Amino acid sequence: MKGRILKCLRETDDYVSGQQLCQELKVSRTAVWKVMNQLKEEGYMIEAVKNRGYRLVRTPDLVTADELNSILKTSWAGKTVIYEEKLVSTNQTAKVLAEQGAGHGTLVVAERQTAGKGRRGREWHSPKGSGIWMSILLRPDIRPDKASMLTLVAAMAVYDAISSRIQGCSIKWPNDIIIDGRKVCGILTEMSSEPDHIHYVVIGIGINVNTEDFPEDIAGVAASMHTASGQYFKRSEMITDVLQTFEIYYDRFMETSDLSELMEEYNKRLINYGQRVYIEERGRKYDGIAEGIDREGCLLVRRDDGMVVQVISGEVSVRGVLGYV
Amino acid sequence: MKGRILKCLRETDDYVSGQQLCQELKVSRTAVWKVMNQLKEEGYMIEAVKNRGYRLVRTPDLVTADELNSILKTSWAGKTVIYEEKLVSTNQTAKVLAEQGAGHGTLVVAERQTAGKGRRGREWHSPKGSGIWMSILLRPDIRPDKASMLTLVAAMAVYDAISSRIQGCSIKWPNDIIIDGRKVCGILTEMSSEPDHIHYVVIGIGINVNTEDFPEDIAGVAASMHTASGQYFKRSEMITDVLQTFEIYYDRFMETSDLSELMEEYNKRLINYGQRVYIEERGRKYDGIAEGIDREGCLLVRRDDGMVVQVISGEVSVRGVLGYV
Repeated sequence: MKGRILKCLRETDDYVSGQQLCQELKVSRTAVWKVMNQLKEEGYMIEAVKNRGYRLVRTPDLVTADELNSILKTSWAGKTVIYEEKLVSTNQTAKVLAEQGAGHGTLVVAERQTAGKGRRGREWHSPKGSGIWMSILLRPDIRPDKASMLTLVAAMAVYDAISSRIQGCSIKWPNDIIIDGRKVCGILTEMSSEPDHIHYVVIGIGINVNTEDFPEDIAGVAASMHTASGQYFKRSEMITDVLQTFEIYYDRFMETSDLSELMEEYNKRLINYGQRVYIEERGRKYDGIAEGIDREGCLLVRRDDGMVVQVISGEVSVRGVLGYV
Repeated sequence: MKGRILKCLRETDDYVSGQQLCQELKVSRTAVWKVMNQLKEEGYMIEAVKNRGYRLVRTPDLVTADELNSILKTSWAGKTVIYEEKLVSTNQTAKVLAEQGAGHGTLVVAERQTAGKGRRGREWHSPKGSGIWMSILLRPDIRPDKASMLTLVAAMAVYDAISSRIQGCSIKWPNDIIIDGRKVCGILTEMSSEPDHIHYVVIGIGINVNTEDFPEDIAGVAASMHTASGQYFKRSEMITDVLQTFEIYYDRFMETSDLSELMEEYNKRLINYGQRVYIEERGRKYDGIAEGIDREGCLLVRRDDGMVVQVISGEVSVRGVLGYV
């Protein structure tokens, strides 16, 4: 009920009368009054005026299920939100829920992760309150070898949410979002499958939103939307923006089961596009001009001898002339 | 200790003295005596003669960890055996153990499965006592799209174990073992992965060994080694044969990360080899002569117009002139 009351308050600029809330939600005045107090305790600033009702003045920076449910306008992404203040990692919880039958689009969000993970088990710094740590559960009916492309689809959605707020971010192929050469978002895709059938895919997304400083060991390579712009951002609004855009891109991806409908837009967001890149792949080194991704999500690199190499993501290092990017 | 005493008894045709067992295993006479009684209760027939010691006369048809440990001679496959009388499915348990960090080669065996699964969630009949229901946990350092080939590697190992005991079995591409057109073994490969990195692979193997009759709904398509030969077989010996052969084939597979070292031997076991096959794939139908698999495990089919089609496993139906095969 809390989410629905919050939604009513959000959808009106003016006051919402207590009576109206009681009628719409079929609850008592006392129940409404209790929820208002709970919301205030959580940090929502609600003005109550006699004979006029309640008005939402300010919202706190929360990523709870109620907060998200009150602003989500997607058709399937995040239709079920699982929020916990603390999780080992949102991907781990999403995988457990998936094994128990959780549906396509289920979203897992935590205020902090005690052991957030990046690719190949690397640590992902996930402190309380400053970032978005979430995982989306997907059940696409595509071949397992196509699933890696979903990482690029997610990167596009995150890029759009960040770049509508601040300038200067880019995608570094395949799925890092960077600002000034520093990573502001990481995406970890995990899958459970049979050889020709996907059980589920979990896309973990970590975004450094309001982080003010980073531990010494990653300070040189990590950025947040705040360190890059000096501003603070509502994380719940970021999350809903990412989900809304992801839903659109995902549906376009599923039309063809590849990136043919999205590669042009992806390439516009790609920092390496048209730039010289240095590739290192299992001891093999070469360089050339990045010509963007193909419909399978591989990076095409035209070497100086004219040959175009299709770089498959994985343990490959891609560096530009300016170092990291 | 039980497994080690069993191993000592097994490795000697003659009597093993109680004193010798005490010294080798560093335990008391009473402890040895207790284990002998336990083994007898489990169905092992052990002769005890004063001044000579113990002799193993007959072994029951068990697949317990002690039984398997006493005969396994592999270097890594089944080095850890997890046995339960009853499991929902051995794949499910293997996946849970894998998430908890269980090692490469861990074997999960059950006397019966309450909800054994085939591909895409289909039911697999797994009654008590008559079959082999087991899963092998693997942690190969290969790209996820290569993992499906492991199913074919496992099929070869099962084929070898069955065909060294009875005649008339074949592999039906990609991984069914059939006798007289009926399925005697099913293999379900499941994987947890990142796009470029495998967390683990679980290969579930179900073999109908001593099954005497099948439920009506599968009686027309299922066979057991017993229904095909009239004989009964020790399941523990079958399991160790499968693991020993699997280990060899697996290591050969890993040398190249594909089937180039194994495809010739696979094709010799393939019932469809050189035969006309009828393919139905997403509504598309064609036929031709099966020319065996390629190094990626795809079935090559030469159509009458000379074109060779590479058939990828999945929701594809392959039928021979005699119907099912």
